[in-house]
Amino acid sequence: MKILSGLVVSEYILEGICDGLKGPLKRSPCLVFVLVGHHAPSETYVSMKVKACEKVGMVSKVIRLEETISKLLLEEMILEFNKDETVDGVIIQMPLPRHLEQIPLLIAPDKDVDGFTPTNMGKLVLGDLNGLIPCTPQGIFYLLRHYNISLENKHVAIMGRSQIVGKPLANLLSLKIPFANASISLLHSGSKDLKAITQTADVLVVAIGQKEYVDASYIKQGAVVVDVGIHRHQGKIYGDCQKDSLSLKASAYTPVPGGVGPMTIACLLLNTFCSYKQKFKEAGSSRLVFDRHLLTRTS
Amino acid sequence: MKILSGLVVSEYILEGICDGLKGPLKRSPCLVFVLVGHHAPSETYVSMKVKACEKVGMVSKVIRLEETISKLLLEEMILEFNKDETVDGVIIQMPLPRHLEQIPLLIAPDKDVDGFTPTNMGKLVLGDLNGLIPCTPQGIFYLLRHYNISLENKHVAIMGRSQIVGKPLANLLSLKIPFANASISLLHSGSKDLKAITQTADVLVVAIGQKEYVDASYIKQGAVVVDVGIHRHQGKIYGDCQKDSLSLKASAYTPVPGGVGPMTIACLLLNTFCSYKQKFKEAGSSRLVFDRHLLTRTS
Repeated sequence: MKILSGLVVSEYILEGICDGLKGPLKRSPCLVFVLVGHHAPSETYVSMKVKACEKVGMVSKVIRLEETISKLLLEEMILEFNKDETVDGVIIQMPLPRHLEQIPLLIAPDKDVDGFTPTNMGKLVLGDLNGLIPCTPQGIFYLLRHYNISLENKHVAIMGRSQIVGKPLANLLSLKIPFANASISLLHSGSKDLKAITQTADVLVVAIGQKEYVDASYIKQGAVVVDVGIHRHQGKIYGDCQKDSLSLKASAYTPVPGGVGPMTIACLLLNTFCSYKQKFKEAGSSRLVFDRHLLTRTS
Repeated sequence: MKILSGLVVSEYILEGICDGLKGPLKRSPCLVFVLVGHHAPSETYVSMKVKACEKVGMVSKVIRLEETISKLLLEEMILEFNKDETVDGVIIQMPLPRHLEQIPLLIAPDKDVDGFTPTNMGKLVLGDLNGLIPCTPQGIFYLLRHYNISLENKHVAIMGRSQIVGKPLANLLSLKIPFANASISLLHSGSKDLKAITQTADVLVVAIGQKEYVDASYIKQGAVVVDVGIHRHQGKIYGDCQKDSLSLKASAYTPVPGGVGPMTIACLLLNTFCSYKQKFKEAGSSRLVFDRHLLTRTS
């Protein structure tokens, strides 16, 4: 079973961004993180993203707010960031208190580097690659492409239909673009005859948020398995799949940690970089084209 | 094989709209059709839609333009309709000359009764049912629901991934809402092992635009088949499926004509009605809730 290393491929993307930022700049790209309340995993994720920004020479600003902040006040802040020409991307870290759940929809589509607003999601469905594509789906696509795993006409089964992974991934991989153009099955925890479908898949993406849920009985011989899960338990990190069980049957696997996770962060910076570049109209606008160049250059 | 009649169910929807328009109105709902060039099928479709408008008491305006109209001029017209408070819906009939292909994206999302703009498509992906949902997918959903065919946890295979049928249908039927919540397989003409997937489906939706392409070998015993195709040949009308071949194996089938076609037109008027109602804030905004009431009332 070949290991598809997100650590290796994300490095290529970060190097590419560094290269793209060489030479005299009017200003550095700037990414704003809004962190509401005190949620330990959110703190971890934001600090990882901030470190990645530093690594490639991007400016990051972390805005820390109490859970009691009013909707109106946070709304006003977001609208200010939308107008601020020195800000290229805005991220509001999830989860949010219930009264603020609709706030991320206010982020201007061209600064929505998470790709979660209806405009960016709709552009993805319609195959308009000038939108900002959600980071995890984008990362999975680049990871497979780097290892020359074309999905063309193949059957990709996706377990889990979240708005940040399953749904946008289904829409991305069904686009008629090189390396995608797949048949997609989008499944969920209640799906009847789940295994009958996953066992016909050439590629199985598991994003159901259940520790070591999927074993070899879910896949056909030689399938590629992408594990999107991440679970911390007694000091160890686990995915949604039982790696040992898969090892004799799968042809390739994205490990946890070191698989999809670093790709997600790299694609967040890639989205920010593209948003920045578009502002200065210095490059072609399609991030997929940009990145195709980037990944084939070094690999 | 039970016949799922779009003629019957579309009548319920149109009656519901008529009821909703009874009593003194500030003005009637108004739908604008823009017809560019001289394309015979487009003329037919628009005249069918205009007749449906008359039937329920909606005003329709047909704007006929030459193929040579400039992009700028058509853009200005659309922006005028967007501002015009007496207009509830705008449709630009496809196909369009190449230089005008991006124009429909300019229609204001709240008047985009075809549901094709990124905003409405993105809302659909995100499960925000306050958006306008493309008419054919919406019609297929209501047709199945009327005949009490729940898709809950079932496997729905969709052949064809167009922006007007396959893609929005996949996103609609995978939503966690009553009667949907399905496992979805989105397939295309190049899909490898196509039949291996369609043969596991409880419901097969065929929207590939090829006359009588699908026969009984594509389905499992007892499957429901939705035929979205429409082909005119030597004075007769055909679908994408061979009805006779399916008859002993399928449990239910949407005929052509009289199946999905009339549902599409009814849902266009339903979208226009909802757009109108939202303007006057006279009703709950979710068209799915509205329609659930509508269909259970009469059936």
